[in-house]
Amino acid sequence: MSTTYRVTGMSCGGCSKSVTAAIQEIAPGAKVEVDLGDKAVTVDGADEAQVRQAVDSAGFGFEGRV
Amino acid sequence: MSTTYRVTGMSCGGCSKSVTAAIQEIAPGAKVEVDLGDKAVTVDGADEAQVRQAVDSAGFGFEGRV
Repeated sequence: MSTTYRVTGMSCGGCSKSVTAAIQEIAPGAKVEVDLGDKAVTVDGADEAQVRQAVDSAGFGFEGRV
Repeated sequence: MSTTYRVTGMSCGGCSKSVTAAIQEIAPGAKVEVDLGDKAVTVDGADEAQVRQAVDSAGFGFEGRV
């Protein structure tokens, strides 16, 4: 089951890749899709606390579920 | 003493912030300056292994000292 979160501060492909890498480091095997236009990150295979920690440590803004 | 490293994959301010956050998570208090045009990250207060680990975990490309 996937969950979509609002994440601010991402503006290019490098940001997308960075958020994805940070989440997959904490939750290996998680599936991550980033929509820059919607400031949305959809994750399958990690819980909300893991996503929050990864997004924070990567320097972006975690704003909870969409 | 600061050291400058080549880091690929950074293309905007979000990337700069992400690399900086990743390094400072591993080495709190480190000073980090990012030059996007030169693909350069200058760090004071973290050793090369810490910078490599941080850059890798943030999804960018660590290419060693400039």
